[in-house]
Amino acid sequence: MIVALAGGVGAARFLEGLIRVIPQSEITVIGNVGDDIELHGLHISPDLDIVVYTLAGLVDPVKGWGFRGDTFQCQDMLHNFDHETWFNLGDRDLATHIYRTEQLRVGKRLSEVTRGVVRHLGVRIKLLPATDTPLQTYVLTTKGYMHFEEYMVKRQTAPKVLGVSFRGATSAKPTRNVIESIEKADGVIIAPSNPIVSIGAILAVPGIRSALQRTKARKVGVSPIIGGKTVKGPAAKLMRAVGFRATALGVAECYRDFLDTLIIDRVDRKLAPEIQDMGIRTIVTNTLMKRMSDKVRLAKIAVRETKR
Amino acid sequence: MIVALAGGVGAARFLEGLIRVIPQSEITVIGNVGDDIELHGLHISPDLDIVVYTLAGLVDPVKGWGFRGDTFQCQDMLHNFDHETWFNLGDRDLATHIYRTEQLRVGKRLSEVTRGVVRHLGVRIKLLPATDTPLQTYVLTTKGYMHFEEYMVKRQTAPKVLGVSFRGATSAKPTRNVIESIEKADGVIIAPSNPIVSIGAILAVPGIRSALQRTKARKVGVSPIIGGKTVKGPAAKLMRAVGFRATALGVAECYRDFLDTLIIDRVDRKLAPEIQDMGIRTIVTNTLMKRMSDKVRLAKIAVRETKR
Repeated sequence: MIVALAGGVGAARFLEGLIRVIPQSEITVIGNVGDDIELHGLHISPDLDIVVYTLAGLVDPVKGWGFRGDTFQCQDMLHNFDHETWFNLGDRDLATHIYRTEQLRVGKRLSEVTRGVVRHLGVRIKLLPATDTPLQTYVLTTKGYMHFEEYMVKRQTAPKVLGVSFRGATSAKPTRNVIESIEKADGVIIAPSNPIVSIGAILAVPGIRSALQRTKARKVGVSPIIGGKTVKGPAAKLMRAVGFRATALGVAECYRDFLDTLIIDRVDRKLAPEIQDMGIRTIVTNTLMKRMSDKVRLAKIAVRETKR
Repeated sequence: MIVALAGGVGAARFLEGLIRVIPQSEITVIGNVGDDIELHGLHISPDLDIVVYTLAGLVDPVKGWGFRGDTFQCQDMLHNFDHETWFNLGDRDLATHIYRTEQLRVGKRLSEVTRGVVRHLGVRIKLLPATDTPLQTYVLTTKGYMHFEEYMVKRQTAPKVLGVSFRGATSAKPTRNVIESIEKADGVIIAPSNPIVSIGAILAVPGIRSALQRTKARKVGVSPIIGGKTVKGPAAKLMRAVGFRATALGVAECYRDFLDTLIIDRVDRKLAPEIQDMGIRTIVTNTLMKRMSDKVRLAKIAVRETKR
């Protein structure tokens, strides 16, 4: 069993390759719930949905989130009801949130509901939210604390970030099977996601970080930072904000207490010696995932490295 | 102020005429909540929405409910999640239910939320749900009790009905202003709606029937039964099921304890003497509302009769 820690779009693209390298039934993904937000009374799990929609082959390939060809009729109307509609919710996408919200209201755990979403969309990996207890990522900006999605989507990452905090983290419990799946994994992959807010919110759940340190599985990361920049999202900005270098070196620093190997891009090859000095094996390759062949090749390298 | 008791499609069509005869600001509609149902975790108020959408000029003119030109993308997807989707919910329509559900969850009363729906859709009548406390119409069939919408939409009125009951009616309280609006009305109109389940569920709220008996306003009804048939819906079937004749006579019987005048169709003119014998003035005219001119003419007759 391969266990992957995954955030949103970057991770989902990597996982598209992974499911073509090993069977879905042998993949457990630990997903980020820090971006979860309640809007219009609906529980939205952006990162979990991105992973499922992508692996179901239904995701909007340009945006990287939502369903391909979705419409926004309900949202247009919610706007008429004076609802804030800065977080785009397509009509088909809404069904997932309506389903999730109803299931949670009748007492199901997020992990059970997520299993339902995965199954109903025809995906066969195991997707475990890092925690079933509420944990939300907030960024401290010069305008005060705001929910990560407000910072990311509503404010378009404009406010200057002074820090990141995970509300509910101290009392959060890892979802059942999360610790066990890490302990018993044949390999662990840290997908190319934001190390501060996406993977960071997973690692903030008590017990997960120590399970990664403890497990005998090899832990292989893919740097989401290429040439000091992120392909998508504010990873570089947030890394700097909390005191890391916004390079593959900074990524290595985020994971150095448990990581065995870091896969970095060719443009960052000069950083390899310094990462190796941290005791982390470094693989230099093309990490930009444009075509499916890029995703498959990268996944192959990562899987091979877990077996080393 | 004219007060109208209203159910769904028939009433809404009548009200389209009424708002062209007197200003919206002088109309209070007491609406039926007996058809309200929770589906997918959302609170749906079919009759209230039909009235608002119709008066907003946004209703689907063929179906008589929902928004004109609405799509059903979310519902298609809910079907994938194994949700029962026999109750059609368009994407734009869903916004109303999402808005209502969220507002109710944060503690607002249905009447307050309804005021919001009315205002946001640009309608200016006052629409009061008969009660803010839960009241749901159930029909007893040979297959047991079922929610009215299940009987009406899911079972397409196929089961044989043995009786009708209003769950929550004994403890229901009329919405604030309902009793006062009836007492102070210049005229009361019973719109052409199902006397058993639509108007019946309004009259089942303790205090409303006695307010109608007590008020000095003239009370004018429009028969929804034309030649022993209903234009739309199961009114005739349900009237017979609970022991009334499925004719304009039966309608008069339903309201005889408070009604001053009943407007009936020309095809039913032979029934006029017997209705008059109950002490109810009878006006014979064309009551079928096909065009806007039909609706306006009928509304004019009803309004004139309240001033008699």
